[in-house]
Amino acid sequence: MRINGEPTRSIRALADQSGVVIIDQTKLPHRLEFRVLTTLEEAAQAIATMQVRGAPLIGATAAYGVALALATDASETRLDTACARLLATRPTAVNLRWAVERMQERLRPLAARERREAAWGEAAAICEEDVTINEAIGRHGLPLLAALHGRLGRRLNIMTHCNAGWLATVDWGTALAPVYMAFDAGIPVHVWVSETRPRNQGAALTAWELGAHGVSHTVIADNAAGHLMQRGEVDVVIVGADRVSRNGDVANKIGTYLKALAARDNGVPFYVAVPGPTIDWRCAEGRAIPIEARAAREVTHVAGLDETAVVREVRITPVASPAANPAFDVTPAHLVSGLITESGVLAPQAAALRQAYPEHHD
Amino acid sequence: MRINGEPTRSIRALADQSGVVIIDQTKLPHRLEFRVLTTLEEAAQAIATMQVRGAPLIGATAAYGVALALATDASETRLDTACARLLATRPTAVNLRWAVERMQERLRPLAARERREAAWGEAAAICEEDVTINEAIGRHGLPLLAALHGRLGRRLNIMTHCNAGWLATVDWGTALAPVYMAFDAGIPVHVWVSETRPRNQGAALTAWELGAHGVSHTVIADNAAGHLMQRGEVDVVIVGADRVSRNGDVANKIGTYLKALAARDNGVPFYVAVPGPTIDWRCAEGRAIPIEARAAREVTHVAGLDETAVVREVRITPVASPAANPAFDVTPAHLVSGLITESGVLAPQAAALRQAYPEHHD
Repeated sequence: MRINGEPTRSIRALADQSGVVIIDQTKLPHRLEFRVLTTLEEAAQAIATMQVRGAPLIGATAAYGVALALATDASETRLDTACARLLATRPTAVNLRWAVERMQERLRPLAARERREAAWGEAAAICEEDVTINEAIGRHGLPLLAALHGRLGRRLNIMTHCNAGWLATVDWGTALAPVYMAFDAGIPVHVWVSETRPRNQGAALTAWELGAHGVSHTVIADNAAGHLMQRGEVDVVIVGADRVSRNGDVANKIGTYLKALAARDNGVPFYVAVPGPTIDWRCAEGRAIPIEARAAREVTHVAGLDETAVVREVRITPVASPAANPAFDVTPAHLVSGLITESGVLAPQAAALRQAYPEHHD
Repeated sequence: MRINGEPTRSIRALADQSGVVIIDQTKLPHRLEFRVLTTLEEAAQAIATMQVRGAPLIGATAAYGVALALATDASETRLDTACARLLATRPTAVNLRWAVERMQERLRPLAARERREAAWGEAAAICEEDVTINEAIGRHGLPLLAALHGRLGRRLNIMTHCNAGWLATVDWGTALAPVYMAFDAGIPVHVWVSETRPRNQGAALTAWELGAHGVSHTVIADNAAGHLMQRGEVDVVIVGADRVSRNGDVANKIGTYLKALAARDNGVPFYVAVPGPTIDWRCAEGRAIPIEARAAREVTHVAGLDETAVVREVRITPVASPAANPAFDVTPAHLVSGLITESGVLAPQAAALRQAYPEHHD
């Protein structure tokens, strides 16, 4: 999407294959800093420290991480250790495993001398496919927003959670793809941006990318979601997903489940935008999805810009108080109005998913 | 309750009636600073800026504000303007109106020369009654926790929201009164402390006061509440209230409604601790309760202690992004397991409330 009119992607390979350029998302919204990853370890660290985050972008970065790992040693051993290193960075996003396994399957049968070139090609293909998938999610979601706008005849109020925008993918975003398409099509939209504690990806990333593209939005505390729905201020909720089980349960950023409950209680449609690679066909139901426990410091400390324009961390809790930080929760399928996928809007049910993705039929 | 073993109250009058001592709660948890309020305007500002907060403590401070206002001029005009000034500070907490009207009713019939002394006496009575009420809430709540502990035979995990502890009242607290009594009675308790964005009263105040009294607790992002309930990590939720309507709907800190929905979805009992003065007999149902909209800056900026031990505010949002900040939400009575009052544990229904408080029967 655009940064002040300039088309930009969240990740791109350098033409000489010496590295890949990412946006260091831990610096947003205060600084737009691009960073070049040149080694496997830099790619793994960028994922683990959330310089890149969002299930699709994690997958894309991991794919390039494999390519970078093969620069000096393209042996099968190197391929396997690189894949293991990348898989260990984040446990919940299934796209990571999907991308790494796809690289492994593509590269292992090749001779070592062919692997490096093929790795760059495969990583690029993963990125292009992500863009294509997200654009298709946008196209399938757009009619839902257009119909809602047609019925209400006024500005649409869309609530989202965390960042499932273009910063979370290679381009377009998942949850925000239909929003950008509606905006570009002239439908008046306004986005309620939940700040998404503890890491504030909503306040920092979603607010920033919507603002950079020119989309009207308002930041709220996560706690305000239910109240706004009770007052009729939310017409639809669209969120992304880090992993969807075969039966349509959705693991997404912690707090998603609370929004789904409030949407149900107030008759607000609750959609989840899901690219195919986010569906975990090996996972029968949501309770089997591993939930990442992140550092307590993400809860006890908050980073932001101080009055002298320096980014600083401040502690908000008593020094002796412990904190817990589960990073995701699972929204049961029965609370989901529909899954907006590149294959259309699907019912969150095993049969509908199998039908849309017959190649995964058991 | 205790601060490192020392019994302390959140507000106390100086013996010479020159002022009242409060804890500046905006400085917690990083600094314990007592402050002396000596004028009406200082009392009003302390309420408006939330140096004192919590429905019962707001009422107590307003009562002393009236007493302070009469120091130099005890005329009926002065009484009325002082009451109007105090009523304008916060719109949602009904205890504020209750305390101010009680002071007015007590003082207006008196001769001007008697008013000052009577005002100090009435404010002190309001404080003592608050302590008595909260202690009774604790006594009525304790058997609920004792029974739960007896049934589960392990440490009780209690979730609360915002701060409804002794810092929100004169002593004991409302929601935390049963917790302190259980702790003091040797029942093993652990409290999940929701940080309570945007002002972080959980992270700052509840964590601090539980720690100061020695109660085991863990701070979580508000978003984590549903996940912990899904995983069976929460045995009971107890929150306070800023106003309860005649039919048992509960206005409390923004985000309470989301916790109530999650509690219902997971079969977790959800109790609201309510002192009598928090029930608004003039208010038929929750949707009639005015919801305070506070400054956007509370959402866009976070205060905390930096690495040099200086309290600073940092901005977490893009400079151009607007924010909305509704401070309370309404939890419908049907999501409430019971109201823990000084008159016992009541069903959240008009008939039960009328029966427990017959003096308010229409």
